[in-house]
Amino acid sequence: MPSDMEVVMSLLADTIAQIAPLDAGVMQAARARQDMLTKPQGALGRLESLSIQIAGITGQVRPQLKQPAVVVMAGDHGVAAQGVSAFPSEVTPQMVLNFLHGGAGINVLARHVGARVVIVDVGVASEIPAHPDLVSRKIAPGTRDFSVEPAMSREQAQQAVEVGIAVAVEAIDAGADILATGDMGIANTTASSALVAAVSGMSVAEVTGRGTGVDDAGLAHKVAVIEQALKLHNPNPADGLDLLSKVGGLEIAGLAGVIIGAASRRVPVVIDGFISGAAALVAAALAPESKAYMIAGHRSVERGHQAVFGSLDLEPVFDLNLRLGEGTGAVLAISVCQAACKILDEMATFGEAGVSGKE
Amino acid sequence: MPSDMEVVMSLLADTIAQIAPLDAGVMQAARARQDMLTKPQGALGRLESLSIQIAGITGQVRPQLKQPAVVVMAGDHGVAAQGVSAFPSEVTPQMVLNFLHGGAGINVLARHVGARVVIVDVGVASEIPAHPDLVSRKIAPGTRDFSVEPAMSREQAQQAVEVGIAVAVEAIDAGADILATGDMGIANTTASSALVAAVSGMSVAEVTGRGTGVDDAGLAHKVAVIEQALKLHNPNPADGLDLLSKVGGLEIAGLAGVIIGAASRRVPVVIDGFISGAAALVAAALAPESKAYMIAGHRSVERGHQAVFGSLDLEPVFDLNLRLGEGTGAVLAISVCQAACKILDEMATFGEAGVSGKE
Repeated sequence: MPSDMEVVMSLLADTIAQIAPLDAGVMQAARARQDMLTKPQGALGRLESLSIQIAGITGQVRPQLKQPAVVVMAGDHGVAAQGVSAFPSEVTPQMVLNFLHGGAGINVLARHVGARVVIVDVGVASEIPAHPDLVSRKIAPGTRDFSVEPAMSREQAQQAVEVGIAVAVEAIDAGADILATGDMGIANTTASSALVAAVSGMSVAEVTGRGTGVDDAGLAHKVAVIEQALKLHNPNPADGLDLLSKVGGLEIAGLAGVIIGAASRRVPVVIDGFISGAAALVAAALAPESKAYMIAGHRSVERGHQAVFGSLDLEPVFDLNLRLGEGTGAVLAISVCQAACKILDEMATFGEAGVSGKE
Repeated sequence: MPSDMEVVMSLLADTIAQIAPLDAGVMQAARARQDMLTKPQGALGRLESLSIQIAGITGQVRPQLKQPAVVVMAGDHGVAAQGVSAFPSEVTPQMVLNFLHGGAGINVLARHVGARVVIVDVGVASEIPAHPDLVSRKIAPGTRDFSVEPAMSREQAQQAVEVGIAVAVEAIDAGADILATGDMGIANTTASSALVAAVSGMSVAEVTGRGTGVDDAGLAHKVAVIEQALKLHNPNPADGLDLLSKVGGLEIAGLAGVIIGAASRRVPVVIDGFISGAAALVAAALAPESKAYMIAGHRSVERGHQAVFGSLDLEPVFDLNLRLGEGTGAVLAISVCQAACKILDEMATFGEAGVSGKE
């Protein structure tokens, strides 16, 4: 009989093993169709390349994205005790309630694009009252303070990733055909900067920004806290669970799982801002083939975000100076992905429309 | 009794005279509301500034954009005879038919964002069969070849601008609360580069790109044709009608009118790519106050587009490597404008949601 731990371990391993490369034949057929549509070849730029990527992801030459969903993972961070954030940790559960009541930025933008919002408590420090729209999968009441000890155990890191896998698969089973990632967690830019520095090899100062708005002294302190933590733990950049357990976050682990789960089911996943980007780095460390399923939603104000794009070879859809998280930039980009697929599916060809080609 | 010409002249002058500055008090109130919403101040970046601009345009602290429309102006260009385009002029009417049948890129993207498409023949060289959705306001069957003579008379330029004003006002009277500009006209990047060079003072080579896809020799020829035309005509950059009559296009004139018409009715207008950008420069020359009503939809691949943003102090919403025109980038940006207004209108405040503020 396998122990519970072995069963749990096999969900992650099995899911990673299911991730296949994109379908090159379908992508070639989608490219050929794009080139027959009534426009100069390549004139719709990123919309064309997005449609071809999504064709390769889904295995459909004319994919349709009709049921988007955004998964917002919430968790707290022990390192908040070090005064690295402009807002207090009590804001994490308050914002989860705001999500559940429909009043947050992500609710507004998800309604705008017709996306379902899935709110997951994977590690909020306080108890959140039961709510029909809250998915309660708390692995721990927040991480430990990684400036003095590992954020979580390796087992907890894996469990949190597997929460994300399970939530993604449940959403896909319920009909979702494109996912977006979103986060909530006071102090989570601190964990994200630590992860990005560890993976990219860049200095902490280069990848650390103001988060929700610390001042110059706060920023210097935040950099010092992260530098100390990385020196203390020395995480292995090639080992996703080592990264998460030493300097990660439960919601970041959950989002890495969402990405891996989406990739295992051949569903495109739109990555939100800096925290989701850190989760994408972890997902890529755990499952390098998951990179092909990622679409970068936007370029955040957080200065470390560019290092994420560099490491993953991604180009963001939007550059709107957002720094809210929650999945706000990602859901806006979902609409662009849908538009891209509609171009591929609905535009007339030169032959159908009787339009002359290039001279 | 005024002559017909005087009546016509007064429509443009009267419309320009109606353009007022944005409402500073409303903008201040919108800014104050943004700062009360459950997010760090400024965390939604461009979405916040767009919502405040639209508040100032509409005079409403919580504006709603429910009925978008894109006006696609079509016209031909005599300068196409010089071999400056990769596609033949017959494509202009063929694409107008494609628009009317719903198969073009703009139709697909307009359906995606719920925008009405208004197709206007303001100067297509050939006759287009009547169609219920075609607005026929042909001023001339294309412009004359501006490499050898003025593109049109000053009167025709004004008439074409006034077509745009009339179409914009009709769309607004029918309920449109945000407009986008779109163009169709083989060889119209040549006219646009001429206009942008004349207004910006930059060299023709710096503001001339490949349009629908001319090769290196074609690009060099295009630059030479434009340089010769500017030398021949020496248009006055401060005189919008002089610019249009000497090196403009009928659809470019019409789009300048759409912008001026929207501004006169306090309706935001999203500017599409390079051709629409040239029209925006003309609109700003005719009516400097119209600039405040413009929202730049996207940054085109056409290299001269940046000069437009510089001249008008605009920042594009999207950078998706588009170069199709038709209004495709602008309608995508309409959706972002709507999202911005919904954020301002629908998000909960810190007080309403019971969320703690910054420490």
